[in-house]
Amino acid sequence: MSGAERRERLRERVRGAGLDAVLVTRLVNVRYLTGFTGSNGALLVAADGADVLCTDGRYTLQAGDQTPDVELLVERSSATALAGRAADDGHRRLGFESHDVTVDLHQALAGRTGGELVSIRRAVEDLRAIKDDGEVDLLREACAIADRALADLITEGGLRPGRTEREVGRDLDARMLGHGADAPSFETIVASGPNSAIPHHRPEDRRLERGDFVKLDFGAEYGGYHSDMTRTLVLGPPADWQREVYELVHTAQAAGRAALTIGADVKAIDAAARDVIAAAGRAGEFGHGLGHGVGLEIHEAPALSPLGAGTLADRMAVTVEPGVYLPGRGGVRIEDTLVVRDGAEPELLTLTSKDLTVL
Amino acid sequence: MSGAERRERLRERVRGAGLDAVLVTRLVNVRYLTGFTGSNGALLVAADGADVLCTDGRYTLQAGDQTPDVELLVERSSATALAGRAADDGHRRLGFESHDVTVDLHQALAGRTGGELVSIRRAVEDLRAIKDDGEVDLLREACAIADRALADLITEGGLRPGRTEREVGRDLDARMLGHGADAPSFETIVASGPNSAIPHHRPEDRRLERGDFVKLDFGAEYGGYHSDMTRTLVLGPPADWQREVYELVHTAQAAGRAALTIGADVKAIDAAARDVIAAAGRAGEFGHGLGHGVGLEIHEAPALSPLGAGTLADRMAVTVEPGVYLPGRGGVRIEDTLVVRDGAEPELLTLTSKDLTVL
Repeated sequence: MSGAERRERLRERVRGAGLDAVLVTRLVNVRYLTGFTGSNGALLVAADGADVLCTDGRYTLQAGDQTPDVELLVERSSATALAGRAADDGHRRLGFESHDVTVDLHQALAGRTGGELVSIRRAVEDLRAIKDDGEVDLLREACAIADRALADLITEGGLRPGRTEREVGRDLDARMLGHGADAPSFETIVASGPNSAIPHHRPEDRRLERGDFVKLDFGAEYGGYHSDMTRTLVLGPPADWQREVYELVHTAQAAGRAALTIGADVKAIDAAARDVIAAAGRAGEFGHGLGHGVGLEIHEAPALSPLGAGTLADRMAVTVEPGVYLPGRGGVRIEDTLVVRDGAEPELLTLTSKDLTVL
Repeated sequence: MSGAERRERLRERVRGAGLDAVLVTRLVNVRYLTGFTGSNGALLVAADGADVLCTDGRYTLQAGDQTPDVELLVERSSATALAGRAADDGHRRLGFESHDVTVDLHQALAGRTGGELVSIRRAVEDLRAIKDDGEVDLLREACAIADRALADLITEGGLRPGRTEREVGRDLDARMLGHGADAPSFETIVASGPNSAIPHHRPEDRRLERGDFVKLDFGAEYGGYHSDMTRTLVLGPPADWQREVYELVHTAQAAGRAALTIGADVKAIDAAARDVIAAAGRAGEFGHGLGHGVGLEIHEAPALSPLGAGTLADRMAVTVEPGVYLPGRGGVRIEDTLVVRDGAEPELLTLTSKDLTVL
């Protein structure tokens, strides 16, 4: 879907809300609606179709190249410049993103616009939750890069006792870059032994040991889209407790994936996996949500969580990532990225095996 | 300097402004004041010394480990939880960061605090502009990593005709990781031939050619601190126009560095370099500021720019990075990271030669 088509969808909402225009300030939303990837910019989407992109002089050439179909305004303070432009264009009711605009910026906007500022809430994020074919292609490739990097790491002996978590993380990052990633999706998590019980552990100088769980949570950014995958492996023959915890998380993760159907409540999807863990008496050892939407951001709508709201729709991209963490001993998380499909199984994008891998 | 000492400095300002407490919501400021590196958190710094850090359950262990000397509150909505706590503690006048708090969050905070919300502006950023010895050590290492990575890239033939900009960028990133970087400081810029005329060019599939300028703008993140360096090299014997432009930028950059003295106005520092370029009739081809502060963020106070305000102080860390860009032909930027020193030359942290390197 082109930026122009995406802006038309937003324009329908602008009109529906009785607004003259909306000022989009969240950069990732500007990118979604225009293709513009600079680090400063804002977009005015007008009910009458006269849209304007604003950025500073560093990005004049880039904006013309990436967004040739939208009028370009070159000003350093892009949001306030567009508020002034909206006033000049006679827009009285101006929508803005109240989850992004700071108190300072709101004050500056109010000083420039002649009219009323009205929150549009997360209207653009709501559009972004449903992926088009081009977005799914990019997510698929981002996931394939992560799959290839992990396969290489394993087959070339990169996960072995004696290496530090940091070394493993850097190795995995370098392999993703080598396979075409623009960057890691986020700071790669390598958590070994007792550290694997820490859900979001930063790699440190701990050396991998025989008998360790090694939890790898990582992904590749590709064309702006993020993959997200967790696998937990064991170095050497697993102990009974390790087999038990792994099997439990594996079963819960499958139950979560099976619950990914159109119209399902996000709380119910979370519960499908959480109930499996609770039934084993380990509810207290799974202290985070089941998953999240993924796309231009690593965390986006919808949240598959006891605190989430809403239902699943066709072509949402989500993660499913239950975990069980035993403080001081170790933990397991298994995570896939999938795309929900109407009338079909969800498409699994992260293809690395989820059987317990013993190295 | 410890987090406790930094909080004391902020506390002096809290008292000076007649506030009962301040709510710090910018994550990088929370990190500066506590050492806590999680992706969700807020900090209450109270005039009476009873500080509270709040984060969610994912980071309970990590927060206890990184910030053992501050009371920990575990709540998902950390800022609003701390506003409630401030009200419970009887704080009536609560400072907040109006450049960070969104309109939505401000509304939520107002609903929780019993008293008045008062902007503290960029009080924490102002503290952060002056680096302590530990910070300079981290910056020095971050710069050394970038120096080593570039030296390896050059000596091992990584910059040669036929390679794409993307390949060079990934190579440089992988080398920084190999030398101990936690991540690249930002998306590495590799701009070759005519692309070198684009100040902030994203690497693409263009192949390097003989006769190209190759502009590399990159850095390493290490322990949370960012290095920032630009070098422009030429592949094969330079043409006369390339020598001329390079020499001009080289002279301007030296003039900018020479202007880094305690008490100097940031506009005057910018002008010291800009005047050199203007005297050569190329003022219109240098369309960005001269430099910026660098530390926990890649861009922070002070701005060395015609739009900046303020003066240089002892132990500020800044970049100096003039450029001249000839659209369609090519451009040169030369950038160092330096620490300003009272009674001494600024300490140059990026040590790679700035003589024109011909490969």
